[in-house]
Amino acid sequence: MSAPPRIGILPSGPCGTIADVAGVAVGHRTLDDGDLQTGITVVCPHPADPFMQKVPAAAVVFNGFGKSVGLLQVNELGVLETPIALTNTFSVGTIATAQIRSAIAAHPGIARTTTSVNPLVFECSDAYLSDMQALAVAEPHYGDALAAATVDFARGSVGAGRGMSCFGLKGGIGSSSRTATVAERAMTMGALVLANFGRTESLTLAGRRIGPAIARRLAGMAPQRDQGSIIVLLATDAPLDHRQLRRVATRAAAGIGRTGSYYGHGSGDIALAFSTAQTVPHEPSAHTLTRTVLAEPLLEALFDAAAEATEAAIVDALFAATTVTGYAGHIRYALTEIAPDWAEIAS
Amino acid sequence: MSAPPRIGILPSGPCGTIADVAGVAVGHRTLDDGDLQTGITVVCPHPADPFMQKVPAAAVVFNGFGKSVGLLQVNELGVLETPIALTNTFSVGTIATAQIRSAIAAHPGIARTTTSVNPLVFECSDAYLSDMQALAVAEPHYGDALAAATVDFARGSVGAGRGMSCFGLKGGIGSSSRTATVAERAMTMGALVLANFGRTESLTLAGRRIGPAIARRLAGMAPQRDQGSIIVLLATDAPLDHRQLRRVATRAAAGIGRTGSYYGHGSGDIALAFSTAQTVPHEPSAHTLTRTVLAEPLLEALFDAAAEATEAAIVDALFAATTVTGYAGHIRYALTEIAPDWAEIAS
Amino acid sequence: MSAPPRIGILPSGPCGTIADVAGVAVGHRTLDDGDLQTGITVVCPHPADPFMQKVPAAAVVFNGFGKSVGLLQVNELGVLETPIALTNTFSVGTIATAQIRSAIAAHPGIARTTTSVNPLVFECSDAYLSDMQALAVAEPHYGDALAAATVDFARGSVGAGRGMSCFGLKGGIGSSSRTATVAERAMTMGALVLANFGRTESLTLAGRRIGPAIARRLAGMAPQRDQGSIIVLLATDAPLDHRQLRRVATRAAAGIGRTGSYYGHGSGDIALAFSTAQTVPHEPSAHTLTRTVLAEPLLEALFDAAAEATEAAIVDALFAATTVTGYAGHIRYALTEIAPDWAEIAS
Amino acid sequence: MSAPPRIGILPSGPCGTIADVAGVAVGHRTLDDGDLQTGITVVCPHPADPFMQKVPAAAVVFNGFGKSVGLLQVNELGVLETPIALTNTFSVGTIATAQIRSAIAAHPGIARTTTSVNPLVFECSDAYLSDMQALAVAEPHYGDALAAATVDFARGSVGAGRGMSCFGLKGGIGSSSRTATVAERAMTMGALVLANFGRTESLTLAGRRIGPAIARRLAGMAPQRDQGSIIVLLATDAPLDHRQLRRVATRAAAGIGRTGSYYGHGSGDIALAFSTAQTVPHEPSAHTLTRTVLAEPLLEALFDAAAEATEAAIVDALFAATTVTGYAGHIRYALTEIAPDWAEIAS
Repeated sequence: MSAPPRIGILPSGPCGTIADVAGVAVGHRTLDDGDLQTGITVVCPHPADPFMQKVPAAAVVFNGFGKSVGLLQVNELGVLETPIALTNTFSVGTIATAQIRSAIAAHPGIARTTTSVNPLVFECSDAYLSDMQALAVAEPHYGDALAAATVDFARGSVGAGRGMSCFGLKGGIGSSSRTATVAERAMTMGALVLANFGRTESLTLAGRRIGPAIARRLAGMAPQRDQGSIIVLLATDAPLDHRQLRRVATRAAAGIGRTGSYYGHGSGDIALAFSTAQTVPHEPSAHTLTRTVLAEPLLEALFDAAAEATEAAIVDALFAATTVTGYAGHIRYALTEIAPDWAEIAS
Repeated sequence: MSAPPRIGILPSGPCGTIADVAGVAVGHRTLDDGDLQTGITVVCPHPADPFMQKVPAAAVVFNGFGKSVGLLQVNELGVLETPIALTNTFSVGTIATAQIRSAIAAHPGIARTTTSVNPLVFECSDAYLSDMQALAVAEPHYGDALAAATVDFARGSVGAGRGMSCFGLKGGIGSSSRTATVAERAMTMGALVLANFGRTESLTLAGRRIGPAIARRLAGMAPQRDQGSIIVLLATDAPLDHRQLRRVATRAAAGIGRTGSYYGHGSGDIALAFSTAQTVPHEPSAHTLTRTVLAEPLLEALFDAAAEATEAAIVDALFAATTVTGYAGHIRYALTEIAPDWAEIAS
Repeated sequence: MSAPPRIGILPSGPCGTIADVAGVAVGHRTLDDGDLQTGITVVCPHPADPFMQKVPAAAVVFNGFGKSVGLLQVNELGVLETPIALTNTFSVGTIATAQIRSAIAAHPGIARTTTSVNPLVFECSDAYLSDMQALAVAEPHYGDALAAATVDFARGSVGAGRGMSCFGLKGGIGSSSRTATVAERAMTMGALVLANFGRTESLTLAGRRIGPAIARRLAGMAPQRDQGSIIVLLATDAPLDHRQLRRVATRAAAGIGRTGSYYGHGSGDIALAFSTAQTVPHEPSAHTLTRTVLAEPLLEALFDAAAEATEAAIVDALFAATTVTGYAGHIRYALTEIAPDWAEIAS
Repeated sequence: MSAPPRIGILPSGPCGTIADVAGVAVGHRTLDDGDLQTGITVVCPHPADPFMQKVPAAAVVFNGFGKSVGLLQVNELGVLETPIALTNTFSVGTIATAQIRSAIAAHPGIARTTTSVNPLVFECSDAYLSDMQALAVAEPHYGDALAAATVDFARGSVGAGRGMSCFGLKGGIGSSSRTATVAERAMTMGALVLANFGRTESLTLAGRRIGPAIARRLAGMAPQRDQGSIIVLLATDAPLDHRQLRRVATRAAAGIGRTGSYYGHGSGDIALAFSTAQTVPHEPSAHTLTRTVLAEPLLEALFDAAAEATEAAIVDALFAATTVTGYAGHIRYALTEIAPDWAEIAS
């Protein structure tokens, strides 16, 4: 079987995942039960409580055919204050509620003696493989995923990625990291994607357009519906403020485009970037904060890394995925099953 | 007692509410039970099902310290496809889920044979008057509010407005309408607000800044916390497309500003405008749609009407509100109780 | 004659202009020659060269019917790097070129050994009072205005304000300042406006709608055309980053709205906020910058100040203006001439 | 010599340029004189005067390190009203002025009896190959380019593209077209780029990353500075409104990304899309306009075409370019000269 392609030329970190950004951990809760092939994934930006130590962040929407929640406040205040949740489209409300309850449990003063809390939940539709009408992801699953958070997390058909499709194949969770040399200092850009997008014919791996060949193999096996989405989370240890993170998040669009996507009409394509270099205290003790921010031209290397890491994470999702049979007997085949010889397919 | 002030110089429609836009109806479900003083309000843009007959719409965020959901898709696709729900901050997830279930019940093909559905839920925090941690607004309340929708709806301390505060006084639901003469034709601009914003000292009624005087009367009676928000819904029968509706929604900022607000830091200040003149079919039978849109310079009169209607709806919320005692014995007094002589107070 | 109204309740600084923000200076070059009643105004954010010491800034567009240039880069990089120029609509290109030549003269390495420079020119149309087709503002006028920059600058019918109209009266340059108490420390918010907007009937002074009365007095004297614009510049010594300055700039909309405006269709309504607390070096010597930023909730007082200062600057423009006769004999009367008794006019 | 690569799988139109969109014409005025290697290119959206017959359009900024003018009004009103000009960074002011004078000459009522006019000028920096400080592009050159407009226009090192660099090679003007099948009807998407972006190491042709090999060949020949930009103009005959055109323009980001770009820090990366299917009269005779708009899901094929056409136009710019020696003896080599064997270079 052909090995997964090398994406780009920047070095990867030791884990090769978003966990190469120190402090970041990822947890899944997978539902694998007949018609229900779905789940939830959480990304913890650091080991502490993000409500108390908020994380500089910015979100960018490439195509807004999506139902993610929490972006308004992230972009107004420039921080996130909960773990980041990923799930299916119809579970967003439930998981937002779970995030609220979780925050209240940890901070009984929420909405009483202090502010309320901003849930942050991203979604893609897994309706082809899972009975999304069942609203199967329940509030406790959020806690399960949080409890499972680790630096050594699974990818592919797990967590929120369980029921996702990508280029007519099985999609799901993918991750990657890139090391950028910024002013002679190594900085890390990690990516985690929930990959549920793309038309088969468009699939391009490391520049090789194998989509048409894959489409021929899939013909008759799985009807295509391109209503997917992609969520890209970018983490970095570089000291960046909200505006700079917005610039970083924008570069995910290049990585998505390189896989053949044109940000399809029905796809909610959204990127969020956050920096772990500094946090913002919930109730600052001083009237001002002292921040370290990267000199602007040095962002160049991070932009390159963000684009590469995004593409690499999508490819990782495709190679990590396993075939899943779900709702109404629908099947999405793993790329590794349909095209173990992908590298020999003529572009 | 001094009568409510006349806002602006444009004529009001016969109802003097958003229901002057033909087809628009409003329903409330109020929770009034000790520590729970909260609820939900729905605005139906037309009598048919908005999932099948989508409504041109646009949302604008003046201050994004808020948790409303559904705006991404409205602004990408230019339409809304559910009734518009208003509730408290922590109930957004629950009501989004209720909207999903309601849409599925009506359209079993959702997320199976057709697209999914985009919930549209706006929120303000009623945590001062209601135990928001109780998450008391439940899914069935959405159906209750829908069932109660009428053109002859109550305003003030009802529905989502039950627990809201405004300028340190009792806020809540307010509504208004204005008739604009557009090319010799009367067009209607209706407004409905969920008013939960403003610092007492800033309160300005019809240009008269009575806030400092009100603040002296309230001194010691009710500690102020300015973490409120305002949601402005603008409905019009003018034939406008998404871009034009975005322009209309922007004018709500003028109306809010005239009441003394400066869009406070902790306030989620958002406006959504929609047009009832034409709908967009869920699955168009033809490849193109024929649309009528107003000639651009004629928007002028509608902008004036949108600003006036917004200010008038906020004033209506203050005058329609009744004093409410709620969570932990907190009280918000009605303006009409604290300042029945408001018109005699020196500016 | 009635004195100008007091706007709001915050204290003004000693100058009562944008120059209360230490370091800010303003210069005019006025063209007053028959059909040519126009000019240019420059605002220097600090005494040094802003190309070498860039200034954190953010711009917000309320209504984009305008031709100002330079905003893209300000909002991408978060800084401005030239003095801010204000002029008439058709002179934007000429003044942008003048800014380029001026920067090159000071920095011969521009576009050779270092980056190019981003001109920043705002505009309103003075076509009613000046023959704008003459393109009378020439490149040297930019240098003239720069050379004239002072803390003790004129307002009213001067500089870029020479030919501007406001609410059917004479408009032009206005300025104001407000002192905000931020965490027990006094911070200054200064405003300078180029006021060229508003329909007569809407004019509202300190909450008193005198527009309809003014319109009756003006009837037959000056045909109204509402194609004006307003540019609001907000300067502060508070330590704010780009995102926070964007929030501050947004509050100008409240101040504009309080004067009766609804951001008319034909009006280019734009605000730019900048902070003088820290600068960004053109070529940072270190890889990171250390920044002081205000704790977010403390922005509240600055938002209040920004809205008040904007309204006050507009009112200042109206009261400072003098009657001007210009192109084709067109006349715009000063408010002080048409309504010296403004305070006695019934609202 | 290796032939240029085929980009994508959609068919090209007969011209293979933006002129496949009926009515679109392109003209150049090239300055080729020693240290001055620069110029101007104009794109006429239709044969009539766009001031009288305005063209639905939308602009999207991927990276705002740029000085283009006119985007504010295009995005507020949803139309463009002049030919689109492309030139070097320091000539934007001059060409904006030229557009104003040109419009006045044709319409003496501008800014007198009717509105003013919105110049629309895009730019990239050609400072490496041309003495940009000379401000050599003069007002008459705009008229020259307009007069030269044709469907059969040159690409490569001509017009605004004369001095542009791309991936360390010679860049410039490129164009392409794609035919999309939309509901069984052929619709055309044309692209024209001013390509002046990209780091050599990133260059990717049809998925093949030849940049590192090219960089080795260029080593010592031409120092790299990545301060370029890319302007993408997309024209279509599909009936789209402003919101839909904004969606189309966004897809240019995918095409740019596929060539290896990550939207570099110093790059002003901007796309503008326009539709020739319908125009908006300058002064509508009726109060409403009747518009035909494509059913939203049918945009899918146009998004695919927009991404492909953008990539193809960039590749065309590289293959059409000829080596240019300019300012201070600087040289940019054509790809066809440096790598005639590009297709044999290992990826």
